[in-house]
Amino acid sequence: MFKHDKKLLREVKVEKPNPQYAAMLQEQLGGPNGELKAGLQYISQSFRIKDPAIKDLFLDIGSEELGHMEMVAETINLLNGHDLDVQNATVGQIETHVLGGLSPMLANASGEPWTANYVNVTGDLAADLLSNIAAEQRAKVVYEYLYRQINDQYVRETIDFLLNREEAHNALFREALNNIKDTASNRDFGVTEDSKLYFDLSTPGKHFDAPNPTPPSFDNPRGPSH
Amino acid sequence: MFKHDKKLLREVKVEKPNPQYAAMLQEQLGGPNGELKAGLQYISQSFRIKDPAIKDLFLDIGSEELGHMEMVAETINLLNGHDLDVQNATVGQIETHVLGGLSPMLANASGEPWTANYVNVTGDLAADLLSNIAAEQRAKVVYEYLYRQINDQYVRETIDFLLNREEAHNALFREALNNIKDTASNRDFGVTEDSKLYFDLSTPGKHFDAPNPTPPSFDNPRGPSH
Amino acid sequence: MFKHDKKLLREVKVEKPNPQYAAMLQEQLGGPNGELKAGLQYISQSFRIKDPAIKDLFLDIGSEELGHMEMVAETINLLNGHDLDVQNATVGQIETHVLGGLSPMLANASGEPWTANYVNVTGDLAADLLSNIAAEQRAKVVYEYLYRQINDQYVRETIDFLLNREEAHNALFREALNNIKDTASNRDFGVTEDSKLYFDLSTPGKHFDAPNPTPPSFDNPRGPSH
Amino acid sequence: MFKHDKKLLREVKVEKPNPQYAAMLQEQLGGPNGELKAGLQYISQSFRIKDPAIKDLFLDIGSEELGHMEMVAETINLLNGHDLDVQNATVGQIETHVLGGLSPMLANASGEPWTANYVNVTGDLAADLLSNIAAEQRAKVVYEYLYRQINDQYVRETIDFLLNREEAHNALFREALNNIKDTASNRDFGVTEDSKLYFDLSTPGKHFDAPNPTPPSFDNPRGPSH
Amino acid sequence: MFKHDKKLLREVKVEKPNPQYAAMLQEQLGGPNGELKAGLQYISQSFRIKDPAIKDLFLDIGSEELGHMEMVAETINLLNGHDLDVQNATVGQIETHVLGGLSPMLANASGEPWTANYVNVTGDLAADLLSNIAAEQRAKVVYEYLYRQINDQYVRETIDFLLNREEAHNALFREALNNIKDTASNRDFGVTEDSKLYFDLSTPGKHFDAPNPTPPSFDNPRGPSH
Amino acid sequence: MFKHDKKLLREVKVEKPNPQYAAMLQEQLGGPNGELKAGLQYISQSFRIKDPAIKDLFLDIGSEELGHMEMVAETINLLNGHDLDVQNATVGQIETHVLGGLSPMLANASGEPWTANYVNVTGDLAADLLSNIAAEQRAKVVYEYLYRQINDQYVRETIDFLLNREEAHNALFREALNNIKDTASNRDFGVTEDSKLYFDLSTPGKHFDAPNPTPPSFDNPRGPSH
Repeated sequence: MFKHDKKLLREVKVEKPNPQYAAMLQEQLGGPNGELKAGLQYISQSFRIKDPAIKDLFLDIGSEELGHMEMVAETINLLNGHDLDVQNATVGQIETHVLGGLSPMLANASGEPWTANYVNVTGDLAADLLSNIAAEQRAKVVYEYLYRQINDQYVRETIDFLLNREEAHNALFREALNNIKDTASNRDFGVTEDSKLYFDLSTPGKHFDAPNPTPPSFDNPRGPSH
Repeated sequence: MFKHDKKLLREVKVEKPNPQYAAMLQEQLGGPNGELKAGLQYISQSFRIKDPAIKDLFLDIGSEELGHMEMVAETINLLNGHDLDVQNATVGQIETHVLGGLSPMLANASGEPWTANYVNVTGDLAADLLSNIAAEQRAKVVYEYLYRQINDQYVRETIDFLLNREEAHNALFREALNNIKDTASNRDFGVTEDSKLYFDLSTPGKHFDAPNPTPPSFDNPRGPSH
Repeated sequence: MFKHDKKLLREVKVEKPNPQYAAMLQEQLGGPNGELKAGLQYISQSFRIKDPAIKDLFLDIGSEELGHMEMVAETINLLNGHDLDVQNATVGQIETHVLGGLSPMLANASGEPWTANYVNVTGDLAADLLSNIAAEQRAKVVYEYLYRQINDQYVRETIDFLLNREEAHNALFREALNNIKDTASNRDFGVTEDSKLYFDLSTPGKHFDAPNPTPPSFDNPRGPSH
Repeated sequence: MFKHDKKLLREVKVEKPNPQYAAMLQEQLGGPNGELKAGLQYISQSFRIKDPAIKDLFLDIGSEELGHMEMVAETINLLNGHDLDVQNATVGQIETHVLGGLSPMLANASGEPWTANYVNVTGDLAADLLSNIAAEQRAKVVYEYLYRQINDQYVRETIDFLLNREEAHNALFREALNNIKDTASNRDFGVTEDSKLYFDLSTPGKHFDAPNPTPPSFDNPRGPSH
Repeated sequence: MFKHDKKLLREVKVEKPNPQYAAMLQEQLGGPNGELKAGLQYISQSFRIKDPAIKDLFLDIGSEELGHMEMVAETINLLNGHDLDVQNATVGQIETHVLGGLSPMLANASGEPWTANYVNVTGDLAADLLSNIAAEQRAKVVYEYLYRQINDQYVRETIDFLLNREEAHNALFREALNNIKDTASNRDFGVTEDSKLYFDLSTPGKHFDAPNPTPPSFDNPRGPSH
Repeated sequence: MFKHDKKLLREVKVEKPNPQYAAMLQEQLGGPNGELKAGLQYISQSFRIKDPAIKDLFLDIGSEELGHMEMVAETINLLNGHDLDVQNATVGQIETHVLGGLSPMLANASGEPWTANYVNVTGDLAADLLSNIAAEQRAKVVYEYLYRQINDQYVRETIDFLLNREEAHNALFREALNNIKDTASNRDFGVTEDSKLYFDLSTPGKHFDAPNPTPPSFDNPRGPSH
């Protein structure tokens, strides 16, 4: 079961209201690489997992992402300020001003509502972990884009925190993948000659050669944090 | 922040696997009146609310709904059994067998992925509470339809529990609406003569008369449970 | 069958073209709380209803909402003016200028196309009426947001008319709910002790107590309009 | 404004309930070539049209399509019968049994909710008329597919009527296109040599030659029905 | 199989970066009348076609449309310039700046992701050809709207080329329809008296008469280009 | 530009028509891990890439995936057989029988139309390559699920070929990631202490420790295939 603590995972604040920044940050509340997607992806994946360590990891990180979602939502809330003012404020979605009464919304920066099409669940541990590693990297990239375009010191501090947490999750998912690397879709890894062909279909140019298929495994050295 | 307790809000079990029942129950995991919708609607509404009592109520119930989502997902998980078998099993969505590897999915019984279009957030307390009251009533109706078509004693017990919880939420939201009835979109309730017209546009038949607009308020007697 | 009268339900005009206002008003043509949604929701609900009074009410109001849709569309049409000019005009959706040739479109203010996911039909009278009451309240709130941000006297008059009509519908739906209150999902209202629990899952804070579930019924005094 | 007459455009009946046929017919209630799409496409196109004859034509046919929608919905309603029974009844969508309480729904035969993405409005008469001609032809094809698979005499009579009406609309739209053929996107029809090239990009095979672009115009002989 | 040649079908360039123009051009990359839609519609239709000439035509044009998609994408790429700058640049979608890192995206000008709901495939040659003729006309109209609002000489040259190609495709599809006019959904064209009715449902105004249904066939004179 | 060769990348056949298998295979034509998604993801990513080797790789594999799409579509086409017969044939989507006239469709096994929400493009090489590695792994898993449930020798041979090609792509994308590992979102990899925290939010259970963030890099030994 889920419990809620009204304390945020980390306090957020803003220099001053800025509806444009609010619209941009919507991307990480309700966009394809945002916090709701991350939270629901990991929680959904956990539903059928039997491995207790991976299940716990997915639920730890999934719960944390819901807490990130709250932090992003509260930041948007503060940036939205107190006035409905669609005309001077927003590039991108305007639902905040005409539909939501300045509430943070489950939509991306252009107003596309969140959809479970963003969520990848296959019931296969190797595939799900790779999906999560990719998702964390994309989330990090979006935060970098936002960081560059948002000149509010406090919002940047929040973004920096969240970006660093994506790095942490990324490292953990890679470690988990290495732990299970001879199981799931990597088990019984038998490939035929078909997997060693290279079709050079775009011309001109040939830069890669016939591949040598192996199950994915990360070079993930455990260092001093242990 | 959100925390997770691996204990379910209430234990679930099933008589035996039944992929058809699993497909049907998907409606309350990822459908428009399901538990994910309820949880995210109330949590989203809470983001901007200032009234501490209502905010707490939305977060209490929103968190509970996430716990219901887990109960429904675990029930689907048990009903899905252990064999991919799309052909003998499922009317409705088949993503479970070809995409999800028997995992519960964030989609309805026909395979439509969950979408935030199901979520109503207006930033207005009266409107949001009425949306919630309607949502709880619809959830109850869907559970009744499922109850009638699912002949598994343990699943029925789970449905019965969840249905009763919707009643509880419904009563609480009505009480909250009565508490704030002179505020929000009900404040400054001034209507013109236009609101007292009746357009009899479908013929034949006239069964209702010109209305007498008043702000919505429930007849919600407080009884012995106090 | 549906018939069309080229006369609008109420004449609309605008002070002068204003593509920004046009984009904002799109919310009530093709958004989740707009006129198309209202019209199609009530008409869809009417398809299976047996109670002749309720069926007539849904068709009267559903038909009226289609007429409102026309009023909103014609207002958008006038506000769009005569020049494709995406750059100086619009925050929000720009499909009007690059796709629709200044036609009103079945999309919300940010360009999300209308979807039947907005429509609630359960085949249960109590649930459907509560959905309608909530829908009317939300529509009213959106019109209030638009009214505050649109400084065109004639458009405001149109909004004021439409808003008052939502009040009328709201009162009528409440009256209908009171009429059928011991039927549909309210019939055989038997709840167990589970419905009298309160899960205090968000901490700190406990503002509500164990509820006393009863079927929903409105305090809807019939006044002088009869 | 729209008015509703409780008499159907043409009476419908069914031999007996058949939930499978109901599910199939959903395609023409809420699918991409169905009656709701047709009705809303023509009505939406009418919003900005100045030519009074075309505007009237679009509203006449658009209103008729809403009446067709009612006929299809009532047929589905009768075919749905009286029992929720997802297991013995339905291939395709099952929302009818778990969500809608046997109500006809605004979704296609597989449960995809209706979306305004189906609607084509460009604000250009030639393009809109060609869109309508294509839409009517597609609708006719879907009715033919349904006719072949539905062995209920009365439903077939309804399908036959609706199919013939699509033919009528098709002929009218072609006549209208011929009437306006030197206007709209066909006006100032100046093409460059680029329009006379043929790129033979799929090999082997070349069956067509460089084209001779002219504005579209139908061979639409007016015959004895005048 | 598909092969790719890194040479564009026709070279594109831009006077200078202009993120606003980039956003507008997105409509023809990922919108309902854009190049991806055209390419995938014709290729999808080709999958089941037996007539070798039509199959070849659909694959020739479908492949060409994928090449157009590349031209539009590269133009957007150049217009996007080098700086993430959501605030000074864009009306409409802002995903380019917060999600895509200035990459062209499979979405329309307001950020709605491309969907196969735009694609019409019926398995009937007459219907599919009419769908294609309509699609080409709509594409032409959108290019005209863009041409009028984009003041960049090189982009205009690209638009002019693409627009002329739509004319070529349009003429070819009409020729193909004339070739197969007694087959497919036009075969056994038997209509009943129902197809000769006119329902004058929108009043006042009656501008058209009872139609004379015939199978669609274009007045498509073959001229000097042969 | 794209060119098409009517020869398939590899010949496909089926033992005999089987509409149920056809419906299941739709998942890899129009589903989230299917061939259209793969093709369009890699081609979209290529639009802005400057690195010539990676651009060539994305276009080689993207073009190959379009060829896979054709193979899957032709297999579905053969499995669909010659008779519209919705009732005896299909669990899952039924659009093939009522809308598409037995044509392969751009939709998944339950009828959800393909959407660009499936496509991940960030403009960052490391993120895009990780997205592709995850996508290939998921595609492989779906093919495994299909292989287990489809008892047609020739379809299994096709699946086996396609599955092996996903392995090849996976290995190539990993090699490419290793090549660029100090660039893109991995460049200037500076993390703060925040990335070394572990939030143990799901209790009971703690199986992982504070992570040691490093840029992702694969253990991808080059073997004898060179």
